[in-house]
Amino acid sequence: MDVSSRIERALNEAVALAEIPGCPPRLAEAMRYAVFPKGARIRPRLCHSVAAACGEDHPIATEAAAAALELLHCASLVHDDLPCFDAAETRRGRPSVHKAFGEPLAVLTGDALIVLAFQTLARIEGKPERLAALTLTIAQSVGVPAGIVAGQAWECESQIDLAHYHRAKTGALFAAATVAGAASAGADAAPWRMVGEKLGEAYQVADDIRDAAADEDEIGKPVGRDLALGRPSAVIELGLDGALNLLHQLVGGAIDAIPPCAHGAELRSLMLSEAKRLVPAKLARAAA
Amino acid sequence: MDVSSRIERALNEAVALAEIPGCPPRLAEAMRYAVFPKGARIRPRLCHSVAAACGEDHPIATEAAAAALELLHCASLVHDDLPCFDAAETRRGRPSVHKAFGEPLAVLTGDALIVLAFQTLARIEGKPERLAALTLTIAQSVGVPAGIVAGQAWECESQIDLAHYHRAKTGALFAAATVAGAASAGADAAPWRMVGEKLGEAYQVADDIRDAAADEDEIGKPVGRDLALGRPSAVIELGLDGALNLLHQLVGGAIDAIPPCAHGAELRSLMLSEAKRLVPAKLARAAA
Repeated sequence: MDVSSRIERALNEAVALAEIPGCPPRLAEAMRYAVFPKGARIRPRLCHSVAAACGEDHPIATEAAAAALELLHCASLVHDDLPCFDAAETRRGRPSVHKAFGEPLAVLTGDALIVLAFQTLARIEGKPERLAALTLTIAQSVGVPAGIVAGQAWECESQIDLAHYHRAKTGALFAAATVAGAASAGADAAPWRMVGEKLGEAYQVADDIRDAAADEDEIGKPVGRDLALGRPSAVIELGLDGALNLLHQLVGGAIDAIPPCAHGAELRSLMLSEAKRLVPAKLARAAA
Repeated sequence: MDVSSRIERALNEAVALAEIPGCPPRLAEAMRYAVFPKGARIRPRLCHSVAAACGEDHPIATEAAAAALELLHCASLVHDDLPCFDAAETRRGRPSVHKAFGEPLAVLTGDALIVLAFQTLARIEGKPERLAALTLTIAQSVGVPAGIVAGQAWECESQIDLAHYHRAKTGALFAAATVAGAASAGADAAPWRMVGEKLGEAYQVADDIRDAAADEDEIGKPVGRDLALGRPSAVIELGLDGALNLLHQLVGGAIDAIPPCAHGAELRSLMLSEAKRLVPAKLARAAA
């Protein structure tokens, strides 16, 4: 079974926990709506790629870790879209969860998806010592002091620490994806953090580029929001060419940071091809 | 060290994870505000009591489980108080989290406390097989299909299933407290579920009694809300005497359900004295 099918199957099995009698049916519906149809699944694919590079030996641990990362990512999107944050009316080209199901259910859907991530991890059978490492790594990437929730909370401070903000809001879950990928395969996970952090920064820069230069149809959400909302952006800071250069440097840095592992060459070529998918089609063609 | 001190110490250590440089300081402040000063700490005390009755042999597991339960309870209060749910302006006699820190930070505080519960569990050292059991039990009591988040979500359905609603919204975390207490001590945990479920029902009835008959000063939140909001209530259904009788029956049922264990007698007398604290002072005096 290919990686994409393994990711979708694991997510489907997780969400199906809500789809039984005794669970409020609209909550179950909103959870499925928040997770499917699939987005880019960048974080779980990264987790699987690193596990494969490390000689994956316990597939259910990798599948659970990848699903947990994606569930937490989806939860963060649901809460970030709420009226008290971004007030986003659309997501992936259709109404956001609070527009489709109402605000109370959107809050609860995010909560339930966060918990579902840990339920999914706890259902890993065998190798209980890996569960502890995965739970800690993944929880830290979401919570305090420097996970994605802490990253979002910088927006509520009167003085924002930009480095901490980006590292937490985007980088934390990427770092967790590489660390958890290695940990799920029983490898020494610490050296993989740098790979994920660089990729997280690269993704943030690519997101700025898409916001500035993509078509709305291509990315399924409004463009030009950074400029309109006065948000920090690599494109505003460095110009479009400067941002593209920075993106290539960061991807190169991530590839250079890959520690010795069983299948490093495959991972390097995968990361290069993935990086091309991060920029808008017209720029990728121009740069090719 | 007595149980109350162990509970406060574990909660303090958990919240301190947010109180370091690099974490948004107002998020850290809001998290501490949501957890301290202490409430009744009923769920962690129940968890400790059951662990002691089972011959507790790994104190850090019991302390982590008890802290996780209380962090999840506090998270649920923060989110339940939000304007889109109860719109409660006060909690424990002072402004609710969203009144004190704003709505965005209240959403994030709840999220961060949920994650902190699992970070706390994952930091248990030794006996990794107990971590899996504790994480699964505690996650299920909060998430889908029948945890406290699912309980709250019944309020968003057009047809509410009252039995599922109460069992999930209040009973789930009590059942987790007894099951996790036993699991943290390495005991056979399944028979303890019934004890927690009965106590959860008893607590729900006691809450209805307090809402109908307590003074606002005594319980630190507005009274008469069930009647005003048309919520189901044992007092409205059975009258005050009927509700008090039901409460005594449920506590008796919980005590009868205690499985054979090392220190059952102590647990039985503790549960009786705790039950007296659940009813308003004037009714406890009248019933004595």
